[in-house]
Amino acid sequence: MKRVYLDHNATTPLHPEVLEAMMPYLTEKFGNASSVHSYGREAREAIDEAREKVARLIGARPEEIVFTSGGTESDNMAIKGVAYLMRERGKGNHIITSSIEHHAVLNTCKYLEKKGFEVTYLRVDKYGVVDLDQLVDSITDKTILITIMHANNEIGTIQPLEEIGRIAKERGIIFHTDAVQTVGKIPVNVDELGVDLLSLSAHKIYGPKGVGALYVRRGVRLEKLIHGGHHERNRRAGTENVPGIVGLGKAAELAMKNMDEEREHLWNLSERLKRGIMERVEYVYQNGHPEKRIPNTINLSFEFVEGESIVLGLDMHGICVSTGSACTSGSLEPSHVLMAIGLRPELAHGSIRFSLGMGNTEEEIDYTIEKVAEVVERLRMMSPLYADAIKERRGRS
Amino acid sequence: MKRVYLDHNATTPLHPEVLEAMMPYLTEKFGNASSVHSYGREAREAIDEAREKVARLIGARPEEIVFTSGGTESDNMAIKGVAYLMRERGKGNHIITSSIEHHAVLNTCKYLEKKGFEVTYLRVDKYGVVDLDQLVDSITDKTILITIMHANNEIGTIQPLEEIGRIAKERGIIFHTDAVQTVGKIPVNVDELGVDLLSLSAHKIYGPKGVGALYVRRGVRLEKLIHGGHHERNRRAGTENVPGIVGLGKAAELAMKNMDEEREHLWNLSERLKRGIMERVEYVYQNGHPEKRIPNTINLSFEFVEGESIVLGLDMHGICVSTGSACTSGSLEPSHVLMAIGLRPELAHGSIRFSLGMGNTEEEIDYTIEKVAEVVERLRMMSPLYADAIKERRGRS
Repeated sequence: MKRVYLDHNATTPLHPEVLEAMMPYLTEKFGNASSVHSYGREAREAIDEAREKVARLIGARPEEIVFTSGGTESDNMAIKGVAYLMRERGKGNHIITSSIEHHAVLNTCKYLEKKGFEVTYLRVDKYGVVDLDQLVDSITDKTILITIMHANNEIGTIQPLEEIGRIAKERGIIFHTDAVQTVGKIPVNVDELGVDLLSLSAHKIYGPKGVGALYVRRGVRLEKLIHGGHHERNRRAGTENVPGIVGLGKAAELAMKNMDEEREHLWNLSERLKRGIMERVEYVYQNGHPEKRIPNTINLSFEFVEGESIVLGLDMHGICVSTGSACTSGSLEPSHVLMAIGLRPELAHGSIRFSLGMGNTEEEIDYTIEKVAEVVERLRMMSPLYADAIKERRGRS
Repeated sequence: MKRVYLDHNATTPLHPEVLEAMMPYLTEKFGNASSVHSYGREAREAIDEAREKVARLIGARPEEIVFTSGGTESDNMAIKGVAYLMRERGKGNHIITSSIEHHAVLNTCKYLEKKGFEVTYLRVDKYGVVDLDQLVDSITDKTILITIMHANNEIGTIQPLEEIGRIAKERGIIFHTDAVQTVGKIPVNVDELGVDLLSLSAHKIYGPKGVGALYVRRGVRLEKLIHGGHHERNRRAGTENVPGIVGLGKAAELAMKNMDEEREHLWNLSERLKRGIMERVEYVYQNGHPEKRIPNTINLSFEFVEGESIVLGLDMHGICVSTGSACTSGSLEPSHVLMAIGLRPELAHGSIRFSLGMGNTEEEIDYTIEKVAEVVERLRMMSPLYADAIKERRGRS
C-alpha cells in the first residue's frame, strides 16, 4: 500500500544526501574523535565541519554549539544546567515557562519544583501565544531563567521570541528556547531572537535520530548534565556520535539551502489541506494561529469523533498522522496544549495534527482530504452523539 | 598507506552486518517509535527485538534494559539516579568506587562530592585489582552504592565482581558496574556477577556510536537523569534512536555468536604482540594483570620514552594505538590508572595501550612488533637520558 507520511513533527525521514554524508563515518572513517592517530583526526575534522554548519544555520559561532543526544537532552541540559548553577551562586530559584511547552521542558520544570525551584507556567491565548503581560508581571528578583518554545509542536503557533528576548535581556535573565520545531523550517537567528540557549534536534530536519545540539551563548555557564571525559569543550561528556553529528551538519546545510523553497511549498500544501478538509467536512475547527504558524503544521479538531479513531482509520489507508505529540501518544489525557488554548475536552480529544514535509505532494494532500472526509463521515455515522447533536442543531436553526 | 587499527578500546568499526541491520531504519523505516501509525509500529517492533538481544547477551530480562546515548550517560544515570533517590529516602549518602574507574564514573562521583555525598575511592594492587578488604572496611550504614568497573579500559584488568556482588548483596547495597569494556568480549551475566546496574556501550562492540544501555535490575529504582516524554518505560526521555538501537541489538547478537572464537583469537594475538615486543625491545614492562585481563588489551610501559611520541611515531607507519583512554588524550597528566597501580610518573608517561579487535591478523601484529621496535629505538637514540641510564646500568651489572 502507498503510504502518505504527514507526521513530520514526530520525525522525518533521513534526507538521502544526509545518509550519503554519514556513510563514510559508518564504514571506514570510524575513529574516536578524541584519538590522536589518523582515525581520530579524521573524525575530529568531520565534527568541526558539522559544528560550523549547525552554527551557520542559527547565526551562532561554532564554539557555541554543544552536540547532544537530541532535543530532550538539550532541554534538560539547558534548564537544569542554568537552574543548579544560578541557585548555587545565590541568584535565585524562579523559572518562567509556558503551559504549552513540550514535555521535555514541562517535566524538567516539574522535577525542579520538587527540588525547591519555583516555576511559573504562563497562560496562552486561544491561538497558543504566551501572555507577555503575565510574563512581565511574573518576573521577580529571584527569576533566573525564562524558557519558552519557539513554535509549538502540536499546533504550530510561533511565539514572539524577539519580545521575550528583549524583556529577558533588559532584566538580565537567561533565556532558553526549545526550537526543535522551527530550526530548519523558518529562519532562526540567535541574536535576532535574543536567546542565550537554544535546543535543536537532527531528526526533525531530515537528519538522524539520537543527535541534537544546544546553542550556548558565549559567556553563559551551565552545570553539566553528563559528567565524564572532556568532550565538547568539557560541557558534555561521552564519545562523540560522529556519524550522527555529521548527519546533523549536513541536515543543517540542506535546511539552509532549501528553506525558502520549502517554506512556500509547505505553506501552500498545508493551506490546501486545511481548505480541502473544511470544504468537505462539517464541524471542523483549526487549532493554533492561522498565520503565525510554522508552515508545515495544521491542527484540526473534528467534533463528535475521537482523534485516535481518525488516526487509526487513516492508517488503514496508509496515511500517517497523529493526535498530537508522539511523545505522549497512548496517553488517555487530552493534550495539555489544546486544553491550555481553551478547547473543551471533547474537541481536544477530537483533534488531529497534520505535519507536512519535503516529500509531500499535492496528489498526496488531495488523497488525504478525500480519506479524511470518508473516515470522519463513517465515524460520525456510528456515533449516536453525532446524530442527536445534528438533529438538535438543525432544529435550532 | 595500509592502516593497522589497534585502538578498539577507544572505538570499533561498525560490523558490516550491523550496518546492514541498521540500513532499513536509516532509509524507509524511519518512524518515531512512539507514533501509533504503521511507521511508528515498525520502529517499535525493531526496538523490542533489539532489547531482547541486548538482554540475552547479559542474562537479563528485556524490560530491565534501558537504552541511552552511550556508556557515559548510562554511568551518569546509574550513579546519580541511585544517589539522589537513596538520599531523598534517607538511606544515606556514601558511595564506594575505585581509584581506576573511567572518568564517566570518577567525575560523576567527584561531582556528587560537591553535592554533599561522600565517596570512598578504593585503592588497587599493582595489577589494578581492587582491595576487597578495604571495600568491606569502607562500608558504613550510610553506604548506598558500590560502583566498580568490570574491566579497566587502559590496562584490561578484570575485577572480582562476583565477590563484590556478594558483599553488596549481603549488606543490601546497590551495586553498579561499568562493563563497557567487557560486554561482548567475555561472558557477562548480571545474576552471576550479582550486579543491580550495568552500563554498556554499542561502539565498543562493533555497534554504532551514540547508543548504549543501562541494565536496571527489576525492583531497583532510580531518579531520572533526562526528563520529558514517557519513553523507555518512563525511565529515559527522548525520541528513541531507532537505527542506533537496532545496531546495538545486532552487535549484541553477533558478540554472543562470535565470543568464544574471538576470545581465543584476541588472546593469542595479544600474547604474540607482547612476546614479540618484549623479545625485540629492552626495558619494557606489562601493566595490568597478566592473566585476569580482557583478551584484547595489552598495556606496556617503555622506559626512557614518551608514550605520546610512540603513538605519533607509529601513526607515521599507519599503526593506531593510544597512550590510554581516548577520553583523556591530549591531557598532560599521567594516567590516573597507571599512577594508582604504583607506576613511577616516567613509566606512566611511557605507556602504550594496544587494544585489538576482530579484524586484526598475525601479519598486522608482526608488522606492529617490528615498527614498535624501530620507533622506540629511534626515540631512545635521541634521548640523552637513555644513554646515561644505559651506561649506568651496564656499569652496575
